[in-house]
Amino acid sequence: MSSILRIEASRKLLRPEPTTRKHRTVAATAAPTQPVSFQTHPSRYKHWQLSIDGDVATLRMNVQPLEGQREGYELKLNSYDIGVDVELNDAVQRLRFEHPQVRCVVLTGSLDRVFCAGANIVMLRTSTHGFKVNFCKYTNETRLGIEDASATSGIRFLAALNGTASGGGYELALACDKILLVDDRNSAVSFPEVPLLGVLPGTGGLTRITDKRKIRRDHCDVFSTVAEGIKGKRAVEWNLVDAIAPLSKWNESVSAMARQLADSVPQRATKGVELDEVKAQDEGDVRRYTYVEVKHDRAQKLVELTLTAPATCAKGADEALAQGAKWWILRAMRELDDALCHLRFNEPDTALILLRVKGSSATLASTDELLAKNENWFVNEVRQYVRRTLKRVDNMAKSLYAVADEGTCFVGTGLELALACDRVYVLDDPDRPVQMGVTSANRGMFPMSNGISRLETRFLGTPEKVGEVLGAGASFDAAAANDLGLATFAPDAIDWDDELRLAIEERASFSPDAMTGMEANLRFAGPETMETKIFGRLSAWQNWIFQRPNAVGPRGALTCYGTPMRPQFDGSRT
Amino acid sequence: MSSILRIEASRKLLRPEPTTRKHRTVAATAAPTQPVSFQTHPSRYKHWQLSIDGDVATLRMNVQPLEGQREGYELKLNSYDIGVDVELNDAVQRLRFEHPQVRCVVLTGSLDRVFCAGANIVMLRTSTHGFKVNFCKYTNETRLGIEDASATSGIRFLAALNGTASGGGYELALACDKILLVDDRNSAVSFPEVPLLGVLPGTGGLTRITDKRKIRRDHCDVFSTVAEGIKGKRAVEWNLVDAIAPLSKWNESVSAMARQLADSVPQRATKGVELDEVKAQDEGDVRRYTYVEVKHDRAQKLVELTLTAPATCAKGADEALAQGAKWWILRAMRELDDALCHLRFNEPDTALILLRVKGSSATLASTDELLAKNENWFVNEVRQYVRRTLKRVDNMAKSLYAVADEGTCFVGTGLELALACDRVYVLDDPDRPVQMGVTSANRGMFPMSNGISRLETRFLGTPEKVGEVLGAGASFDAAAANDLGLATFAPDAIDWDDELRLAIEERASFSPDAMTGMEANLRFAGPETMETKIFGRLSAWQNWIFQRPNAVGPRGALTCYGTPMRPQFDGSRT
Repeated sequence: MSSILRIEASRKLLRPEPTTRKHRTVAATAAPTQPVSFQTHPSRYKHWQLSIDGDVATLRMNVQPLEGQREGYELKLNSYDIGVDVELNDAVQRLRFEHPQVRCVVLTGSLDRVFCAGANIVMLRTSTHGFKVNFCKYTNETRLGIEDASATSGIRFLAALNGTASGGGYELALACDKILLVDDRNSAVSFPEVPLLGVLPGTGGLTRITDKRKIRRDHCDVFSTVAEGIKGKRAVEWNLVDAIAPLSKWNESVSAMARQLADSVPQRATKGVELDEVKAQDEGDVRRYTYVEVKHDRAQKLVELTLTAPATCAKGADEALAQGAKWWILRAMRELDDALCHLRFNEPDTALILLRVKGSSATLASTDELLAKNENWFVNEVRQYVRRTLKRVDNMAKSLYAVADEGTCFVGTGLELALACDRVYVLDDPDRPVQMGVTSANRGMFPMSNGISRLETRFLGTPEKVGEVLGAGASFDAAAANDLGLATFAPDAIDWDDELRLAIEERASFSPDAMTGMEANLRFAGPETMETKIFGRLSAWQNWIFQRPNAVGPRGALTCYGTPMRPQFDGSRT
Repeated sequence: MSSILRIEASRKLLRPEPTTRKHRTVAATAAPTQPVSFQTHPSRYKHWQLSIDGDVATLRMNVQPLEGQREGYELKLNSYDIGVDVELNDAVQRLRFEHPQVRCVVLTGSLDRVFCAGANIVMLRTSTHGFKVNFCKYTNETRLGIEDASATSGIRFLAALNGTASGGGYELALACDKILLVDDRNSAVSFPEVPLLGVLPGTGGLTRITDKRKIRRDHCDVFSTVAEGIKGKRAVEWNLVDAIAPLSKWNESVSAMARQLADSVPQRATKGVELDEVKAQDEGDVRRYTYVEVKHDRAQKLVELTLTAPATCAKGADEALAQGAKWWILRAMRELDDALCHLRFNEPDTALILLRVKGSSATLASTDELLAKNENWFVNEVRQYVRRTLKRVDNMAKSLYAVADEGTCFVGTGLELALACDRVYVLDDPDRPVQMGVTSANRGMFPMSNGISRLETRFLGTPEKVGEVLGAGASFDAAAANDLGLATFAPDAIDWDDELRLAIEERASFSPDAMTGMEANLRFAGPETMETKIFGRLSAWQNWIFQRPNAVGPRGALTCYGTPMRPQFDGSRT
């Protein structure tokens, strides 16, 4: 096909999600937000089918159009909303914990000619700005979670694109280790966001084509502006996909590639650990889990989040495995993860989290020792889960103060939580002692998205301080913590209450947007990775565009898409 | 001072630029934009005094309140607008070319108790979004230019803060090698943007405190929220400044520190090269310089920008030095730089630049050879100037197509210009030959802001191709360029006109914002540096905030600042 024909063809724009008449009347205003739940189970999945055959699992996308997370849109053509992604995230976690025999996961679709049409456009159009931003962050974390499962659990992912993968559909494929595309003269991979919607492929797409698949920038440019996408041999030549296979040989090609991927990694184990349900009890302004409690002070736009380590815990890796999902650290981190996602989506008015770790320092220290020894696959999975949950903290668009006051115990993984906070307030009062300490958890076991530890990030300019802290042992007091550079402020008993009160009041008085932008810049000093690029650069630009009249104004491209209106742009380049 | 007192003090907010009654009535709407000129001369400076004493130069900021670039604001307390920054940029260039004897530049202020209050707030408030963004980009480039002069010319910069440096004033200091702050119990360094204006310190501030001065993130957090800033010993302890000096010893302290800095680097030369004026002639839709021409097609939102290499040129470094500012490559790059800045600020509706290099390939090749040999200080300065101008191309918020058609000559530095473009269209027609070729210019002489060459960035996934291109010699044709992976498309004579026409029409039809966001993500694959962080992460977040009602809405913080109104925030965190 000549390049002119190619370009002419791009004018016949692919419409990944044709809207019904009903939707044409949907206003550009935001629909009321429904609370989002982050707990599900394969038996309750609406949109995915998980099946396992030996060491190969298949996750088949089969989105139910009328089962959206809220009213007002239909999830046609395997387009997705937050509910679809919560199930995907759940499936990836369960594959890691419940099915250690699995070495390769095939992501494919159940529809004819379409793999996945990406995020649902009417859903995006009718969401608040804040919801859009949180939705993109969560889907980004889920895709990074797929790459994380490959990197740290050795589970290989194959995107078996049985039809066109557009927008977020192709971005999902990009998160996999390999991409196989059906060669049926129609199916393509595409980024229609820029030409059709006036927004970016913001779920890592622009970053992964340049930095993961390392596609030439001019090819990236062309690909990202051609709505109908690229298919067949050119998709392989440009490295948009790894291989193509004709429809006649589709199933055997998928199987062969899955087999190859599975054979390239060792099997972790044969028997898994079932993940029971994480349950929260909401009573008034308090949300209680087993080890985590979230207490709201809505007048102050504040929550107090406390994680408590129990008095006793597993003594060795075998005992941990026997306890399974009841091993306290796994349960506590799953609860923390749920609480963080809940706060992001369902409590947008919360500006500040006061974070405390309480309970047994011996439990924290011995648990970290088990995680560091890493003596079986399950312990390794838990260790990686802790790391991911800590990253969820880093990525909160809420301010975080660690509060080390009487009875708190910021040791090891607990100390990591403090280091993930914007500030650390430490009460320096011998009568009300505070316990802090380092364990293996602080020696690089939980790198941030920038690839280095929280201590290394904190002391980027004074690396010798990392050694000083690591040499300080499993238990030291407030004064020592202050000397070591771990306390932002260490007021004494007289100043403590006032200082904390003022710091809380002050934080709530600032522009929430300035806080989000400031924290996104201050939290990730030092090296950059694909992950920091996705959250730092790509997401920030997408958030900008999500505010622009050219996208979301009355005649913006996102507003007009699927309606009889044509977008009208303010033509000035910024 | 106890920490409580410190916090209480922060409530007595420093008001870096009290507004007069006249300004209180200024509406939040944007004032008409005046064309910005980027040419000036020390004899015409309004806001800076440049004086030179041996190997130490002093740049004294003395902003004239009533000499703003346009009406509607007063530049009180050494606050600045684009006109002030154009002079600063001019001064730094002239120090590099005209005063090679200078080894240290002291940046200081002429006011009592205030060094610089940062970007003028009324100016920002009354500017369009596009102007604000371009203003920040230019000021960022100027500050990076100071660091570049230190890194590649060995000129050391000392910020001698004779009074409070707030916001952009402190960001300017952060761009210097060393910061000396007067210790007079009042003068502080501060970032009042977040607490007072609801925006970010967006001229590199948040990036330089974490990644250049490597200040602990919790200290950064506190510093960026305390409007009155940090002064005295704590400023040194936190590494916000390098030293403090009492008023009684101020002059001798500045001199001593400047002397130390000057002595730490070799002197480049004793006699400089005068930079004559870069003049453009505007005739209708054409802007003509000596070697550069800019031709508008306003209906298509298009300019054709052509750089023409002359038939003859300097044969050696001595001849180049003798020619000085008339050496064609310096003149051409100064013209190109002026044209690019002009297009950014004064031609916001231009969406696409068609870039051509024409003229003598022999001139391009022999000039690059001279630049590579780098046999005297002047040649080195020119080489660095070319590099900076190429970065100005990379940072254009305009789409760029290199057009290699009949008579074009993309050789060496010319090829770099092509590689800086989003796409390269190469006419493959033996009857209308195109010339392309590599020189030393493509071998890492002009790294991008990501620290690697444009060829390395282009072929990130296939590094062997870099070698293939570099081995292809100083002259090859369209077909070879296509084989080497340098052409995005290489249509033949039959397809050429239609293909180019369609690509142009298509580009103009896209959302300008989606283009800007897409290009900002696709152009900088690979490693990240402080510079890419500033433009990729910090600027993107700032642009987002510059759109948010909490900053620029009727009750946004930027709108209300300096008026009797108090800001009202939508409290939800995004």
